[in-house]
Amino acid sequence: MKKILILNVGSSSCKFQLFTSDLELLGKGLIDRIGIENTSFEYQDSKGKKISKKDFFLHKDLGIKLQEFIEDNKICDFNDLYLMVHRIVMGAELFPQNIIVKDFKIIEKIESLTPLAPLHQPYNVIALKKFFKTHQEIKHVAVFDTTFHSTIPEKNFIFPIPHQFYKEYKIRRYGAHGTSHQYITEQVKKILQKEEVTFINFHLGNGASACLIKDSKSYDTSMGLTPLGGLMMGTRSGDLDPSIAFYLINQKKLSAIEVENIFIKKSGLLGVYGKSPDMRDVILGEKKGDKRAILAREIFTKRINDYLAIYLNEVKKIDAICFTGGIGENDHDLIRKVFKNFNLRKINLIDEFNRNLEIALISKKDSEIPIYIIKTNEELQMAKIAQHLLAKDK
Amino acid sequence: MKKILILNVGSSSCKFQLFTSDLELLGKGLIDRIGIENTSFEYQDSKGKKISKKDFFLHKDLGIKLQEFIEDNKICDFNDLYLMVHRIVMGAELFPQNIIVKDFKIIEKIESLTPLAPLHQPYNVIALKKFFKTHQEIKHVAVFDTTFHSTIPEKNFIFPIPHQFYKEYKIRRYGAHGTSHQYITEQVKKILQKEEVTFINFHLGNGASACLIKDSKSYDTSMGLTPLGGLMMGTRSGDLDPSIAFYLINQKKLSAIEVENIFIKKSGLLGVYGKSPDMRDVILGEKKGDKRAILAREIFTKRINDYLAIYLNEVKKIDAICFTGGIGENDHDLIRKVFKNFNLRKINLIDEFNRNLEIALISKKDSEIPIYIIKTNEELQMAKIAQHLLAKDK
Repeated sequence: MKKILILNVGSSSCKFQLFTSDLELLGKGLIDRIGIENTSFEYQDSKGKKISKKDFFLHKDLGIKLQEFIEDNKICDFNDLYLMVHRIVMGAELFPQNIIVKDFKIIEKIESLTPLAPLHQPYNVIALKKFFKTHQEIKHVAVFDTTFHSTIPEKNFIFPIPHQFYKEYKIRRYGAHGTSHQYITEQVKKILQKEEVTFINFHLGNGASACLIKDSKSYDTSMGLTPLGGLMMGTRSGDLDPSIAFYLINQKKLSAIEVENIFIKKSGLLGVYGKSPDMRDVILGEKKGDKRAILAREIFTKRINDYLAIYLNEVKKIDAICFTGGIGENDHDLIRKVFKNFNLRKINLIDEFNRNLEIALISKKDSEIPIYIIKTNEELQMAKIAQHLLAKDK
Repeated sequence: MKKILILNVGSSSCKFQLFTSDLELLGKGLIDRIGIENTSFEYQDSKGKKISKKDFFLHKDLGIKLQEFIEDNKICDFNDLYLMVHRIVMGAELFPQNIIVKDFKIIEKIESLTPLAPLHQPYNVIALKKFFKTHQEIKHVAVFDTTFHSTIPEKNFIFPIPHQFYKEYKIRRYGAHGTSHQYITEQVKKILQKEEVTFINFHLGNGASACLIKDSKSYDTSMGLTPLGGLMMGTRSGDLDPSIAFYLINQKKLSAIEVENIFIKKSGLLGVYGKSPDMRDVILGEKKGDKRAILAREIFTKRINDYLAIYLNEVKKIDAICFTGGIGENDHDLIRKVFKNFNLRKINLIDEFNRNLEIALISKKDSEIPIYIIKTNEELQMAKIAQHLLAKDK
């Protein structure tokens, strides 16, 4: 039986999932703390059986170590793979479509986008490069976080800064979480049983983004040049008055790299609450009456409301509002707060629902817009995209 | 007859207006290009009589040169002044109220806020300092651009960055155009004949800001730490994904001061259109079919729509939406575009109206929210604020 391996390599981790060609999930794995210390390997198959080990290695050895772990533990024989799908954060305007990697020139092009995503792109390419070299018999597909957003119109992707920065440096809104927004779009099409769906999706995890999907295509999204923009997140600020950065650099003599680091790693929920970037901790703080936990959740909620209002105003008719991602799928109190402060349409949420459902309708029938919580599945979407590309390529 | 002199000193100009104690306007003056070259003096009285001259001088001599010009041209005898009102951009949290300047310590406090408004505060204080010293017989009142916004709740003024930056450096949303938003609030109270009004005001000039006024108090506003944030403006970017600044500094090796300068002076309409920051020029470009002029107006319009949607969502009921400032009062095509793209409430604009009116209702009766164009008058508002403070001080 031929299989599909989905790879998502980050700056210190490598997530992977194994599917059959019928898109049945066989298992999920995680290699964590790559190049740091106590590098850990974990895998759990679909029956719940777990494997784990520790074995420190450096990024350059990721390919070998991953293959060893998978084959030594009889998770899968690499000879059984017919398809590997590689998640790439930045496709920019070079890759408006996901792509079957057919030569090294494509990998070079992907690497050339590193300046637009310096924290992610170099790591994303590591395994692609290695396996494309050693396993040419396997088809390799690159799926970009930005591709789903390539349909956004100019007025929504051009920033009000000198136009030469777009022409020369390609500075524009690229968005992120594209695969998740696309997966939710497919789910909404199924729910509503129509091809052209117009809705607002909130992917709320440690990173968070809002997306307005118009006629099943991304029409506007909150993340900007990089995943720092838009909504308030776990540790990221989202959009800001840029003078804050200049004040810290020019008046308080912090370096631009320090300030960038602060806005990426020490802001958002962590910045306002002060004790943790994890929403579950902020909720505990809120329950204890911690003022800054309450404030952090208020600002987080307000930013969601802001994008809800902006996107609702951009279309004449809306089919649904959806929430996904770790916070979106689990923090129902937050969603309740959002709609308590939402004054544009009448929305009534139900009190209880089955939280194990893949798709849960959480609004009452008398609501003007149906509200859904939908579990995302980026890896399944990546597998589907790749299979679709292969089918077209025949 | 006792008179009032209103002073608005900028980085290279000094605007002034003369009122009677009954708040009748006697005339308006402008000293321009201070400290540059060809420094020019202009004054026009309420009957239309004009005086002008050229006389180069440096900022430190502003007080003397202003007094000379006013007295030599018999515009007014300084002995006839009982009140001078000084516009100050930044009051921060030190000045939640406007204030009668009674000693030099207050001026020192105002100067201490320079790091929060380095481009404006030092110039704002020049004339205050001089005339407070030489004309103690005149009452001096400081009116801050930020004071009207001191009622904004914490969730709307705290940025999602480390909280210590608020505690230690006082980095928060201060807003601007407060005197204009306050003047419009007084006008809306008159129009609607009630004390507690809730509405959205757009002050659209070369600088631009939106303000949600709830129960006659500022509840949210678009400008942030400085007047760079919020809406797209003539040359300013407004809020952005902060990674754009870091990309230009860290990847493209521009200095933080260069990037700040670009975001303040070369962005906004000028950045996108490329040829002029003046909306009248952008309109001419749009009429000729210039793609970037069209795009600049589309983005400018979208940003107004975004704040319209955000603020409409923040309150249960809204009394009005108002436009003021150079663009707000004159660019009716822009307002038409805003409501063409506005899908949250039914608004129908009338085709023609008397453009000379101080207050013009421009929406038809069947609109769900009345839309007004209201001419702003910051100087008159400053005079009123100062008189009110003096009356309370007796």
